[in-house]
Amino acid sequence: MITIGNVKIGGGHFAIIAGPCSVESEEQILEVAKSVKASGAAMLRGGAFKLRTSPYDFQGMKAEGLELLLKAKEKTGMPVVTEIISAGHLPLFEDVDVIQIGARNMQNIELLKAVGKTGKPVLLKRGFASTLEELLMSAEYIMSEGNKNVILCERGIRTFETYTRNTLDLSAIPALRELTDLPVIVDPSHATGKASLVESMALAAVAAGADGLMIEVHNNPAEALCDGPQALTPEQFAHVAAKAFQIRRVLE
Amino acid sequence: MITIGNVKIGGGHFAIIAGPCSVESEEQILEVAKSVKASGAAMLRGGAFKLRTSPYDFQGMKAEGLELLLKAKEKTGMPVVTEIISAGHLPLFEDVDVIQIGARNMQNIELLKAVGKTGKPVLLKRGFASTLEELLMSAEYIMSEGNKNVILCERGIRTFETYTRNTLDLSAIPALRELTDLPVIVDPSHATGKASLVESMALAAVAAGADGLMIEVHNNPAEALCDGPQALTPEQFAHVAAKAFQIRRVLE
Amino acid sequence: MITIGNVKIGGGHFAIIAGPCSVESEEQILEVAKSVKASGAAMLRGGAFKLRTSPYDFQGMKAEGLELLLKAKEKTGMPVVTEIISAGHLPLFEDVDVIQIGARNMQNIELLKAVGKTGKPVLLKRGFASTLEELLMSAEYIMSEGNKNVILCERGIRTFETYTRNTLDLSAIPALRELTDLPVIVDPSHATGKASLVESMALAAVAAGADGLMIEVHNNPAEALCDGPQALTPEQFAHVAAKAFQIRRVLE
Amino acid sequence: MITIGNVKIGGGHFAIIAGPCSVESEEQILEVAKSVKASGAAMLRGGAFKLRTSPYDFQGMKAEGLELLLKAKEKTGMPVVTEIISAGHLPLFEDVDVIQIGARNMQNIELLKAVGKTGKPVLLKRGFASTLEELLMSAEYIMSEGNKNVILCERGIRTFETYTRNTLDLSAIPALRELTDLPVIVDPSHATGKASLVESMALAAVAAGADGLMIEVHNNPAEALCDGPQALTPEQFAHVAAKAFQIRRVLE
Repeated sequence: MITIGNVKIGGGHFAIIAGPCSVESEEQILEVAKSVKASGAAMLRGGAFKLRTSPYDFQGMKAEGLELLLKAKEKTGMPVVTEIISAGHLPLFEDVDVIQIGARNMQNIELLKAVGKTGKPVLLKRGFASTLEELLMSAEYIMSEGNKNVILCERGIRTFETYTRNTLDLSAIPALRELTDLPVIVDPSHATGKASLVESMALAAVAAGADGLMIEVHNNPAEALCDGPQALTPEQFAHVAAKAFQIRRVLE
Repeated sequence: MITIGNVKIGGGHFAIIAGPCSVESEEQILEVAKSVKASGAAMLRGGAFKLRTSPYDFQGMKAEGLELLLKAKEKTGMPVVTEIISAGHLPLFEDVDVIQIGARNMQNIELLKAVGKTGKPVLLKRGFASTLEELLMSAEYIMSEGNKNVILCERGIRTFETYTRNTLDLSAIPALRELTDLPVIVDPSHATGKASLVESMALAAVAAGADGLMIEVHNNPAEALCDGPQALTPEQFAHVAAKAFQIRRVLE
Repeated sequence: MITIGNVKIGGGHFAIIAGPCSVESEEQILEVAKSVKASGAAMLRGGAFKLRTSPYDFQGMKAEGLELLLKAKEKTGMPVVTEIISAGHLPLFEDVDVIQIGARNMQNIELLKAVGKTGKPVLLKRGFASTLEELLMSAEYIMSEGNKNVILCERGIRTFETYTRNTLDLSAIPALRELTDLPVIVDPSHATGKASLVESMALAAVAAGADGLMIEVHNNPAEALCDGPQALTPEQFAHVAAKAFQIRRVLE
Repeated sequence: MITIGNVKIGGGHFAIIAGPCSVESEEQILEVAKSVKASGAAMLRGGAFKLRTSPYDFQGMKAEGLELLLKAKEKTGMPVVTEIISAGHLPLFEDVDVIQIGARNMQNIELLKAVGKTGKPVLLKRGFASTLEELLMSAEYIMSEGNKNVILCERGIRTFETYTRNTLDLSAIPALRELTDLPVIVDPSHATGKASLVESMALAAVAAGADGLMIEVHNNPAEALCDGPQALTPEQFAHVAAKAFQIRRVLE
């Protein structure tokens, strides 16, 4: 079990993380934060430093985005999760509650060691072509620096199927349960890349025993600067969260 | 919705198919049939003609196995599902309720056309490296012969991950829902290859909206002639089925 | 080494098979046959029964196509290779020199056993998601019927890369050399799906030690009824064949 | 074309890079350097900072290894190639001729930008699950800092096949030729993971049009601290290099 402020995850505790792919403005992040909190989300996500495939894509609001995210934390009381892409940015992450390592940095071992040294909870995403064993080895790089607060996140793997952005490997949940005590959460948004598939995959993840979900929510998906097609509206999220809590209760 | 005897599947109806990988003896198939029926299974599965990777593996009891399966049908009243591997065997399948086309025959178009001509319900498994579009094209081969009674079955795709036998692609369920009206069921047994992972994946499939499950159950998995490591005991199956029905109710 | 008429393949002998994806008319198959023979092709390929993903695509000229192919054999003296998709068609294949089993039928064991019984040379294509071990097990189904004349064919496997139709796995050549004495040939046309990539991949296959090549050639690729984008013109083929023989000599 | 000291690569120029996976001692790196130079290698490779999947594997001799590599450069006159895993190590790389970005760092954009700023030639390896388009986008991160000296390296992608460590995608060579002017080289050692397959794949790469090869050579593979099973002996390398130059001449 990992404790983040008043939130517990793992060891029988279930939590939903929600928020936009990228922080885009104060109004946006605050509005999304309040709405997802009202629907039961325990933590707020929001990207400030974005690792994009192309140098010509939106790279995030960076330090300014981080400040807006922390403002939303202050106003809502929700712990925040945001991605780091360079150890050099660590000083800016002091008030961040959970540091996320993205799929493409899962084997950036210098970054793993650096976040290991902070002692802060780390949300480690599985690389899109990484085996479960490799995911655990990357967690080991963090833990060998003395930081046991690692949350594993399945977010889809790369296969030949093109209907979905990635193929969500939900068997990773019971499989990791056999291999480790670390909490395991699921990101159905990046896995599918399509808002229309997020509800089914979120509920499936809960039924498979996930300790949490991380879901992208945007107040205006059509105009999102990043990954709009996979973002839920706050209303859609409210519906998914309610069903997720119901399914969770069946497992208990 | 497809109707098989007193069983309905699809269009809001949910059904569980259970039974051994292979029919091995009269006692075995009867014992398994009675126990899975008691736990709520609607149909009985059991392989008679087995398509094995190696010619030196057990190839099934063939015609004799089929007879034993039909005897179990008679005694329990459960409709039966069994795999066909050659159009030449069709005369033996007259009393079979649902004809299964296995993953490796998904693009055996002569077989698809032959079962299409029978008009009988067909359970069509997705090839382990087939896209959803290709699965639908194979269904089209059956339907273009005038047979609309096709049930699609996701049973795992081949990826780089080696912890599981295949990677169960549950996003196929909502994805196929967007592409077709045919019922979609899930086989968590072949997908994972490990009995310890079947419960989680079965429940996840239900939460994702599957119209049914097909689960391998054996009265003595340790001595099964085929795929023992993925078979549940009747007791384990009873537990999974009960949970599956509970989760199904949350979705309704 | 396998002997087909005056052609030897394997055991130090190298041969090129060329011809159109589908037989389309007498003029077409004869024109292509003569031109590829002039460039050094040892055998003629041409599809009569086509196994297509969709029932609405061109399914080949069937028996009529086979007759035209055999006419081309008679006029040019070239042994012919053509695909079978149903054991029921075997009587039509009596004068065919090499029977091809396509990638999607690699595990159609009834078909494998049927061609095994004929004793005729069989060209067995690797399934697009089959391991080398599975390919050898399928060859075993043919050989266990007493037919040792099996030629293995690598034709690309399915991966996440979308620039090419499949990913040609040339390491299959030296790998199979370590596992079996059967000849191994390569089909760069289906592997890449793009005529512009065929030359490089054909030459690479030869350098990797392939016992032969199978290349699609059409007298008018732009109007081919099947797979035109991957067909070479007779002129392009002449160039590729000449280079291939040169590289082959370096290995000797 | 990229010029590195007296070596040219791309634009019709072909070069072989050879050396051990890891620098292990002065004697080792010098002995290997001299032998591969005698066989025609143009550049020397040797890892000092190793990015390993597990924190408990040998992580390289680090700064000391770099010094030994530079000593070998001084004594043999060969330009050297070595991997960087952290932008913080850049000051140590001042005398390194070509900086390598490994497959697992292909999307470590902070590192890409940092090596971009140096202006030094960069050898960028394709991630093991990256598309060609993503590889080019990563090259773009380097080039957008003003550094056009990027050499692309295909080193195998991850597939379902387990006989080889990765699946070497040689079609990447002609495909990248259609998409970019950057030189493309191939690493058959990491691709196959087996010394017995390296010769065939090296020659295939040359026949496919590669601008160069990067081959692992160790004076005592059985006792190598890293990746011994894929290393060639100096004698094996001499044979491969000679054949490679012969095949290269066929293409000219």
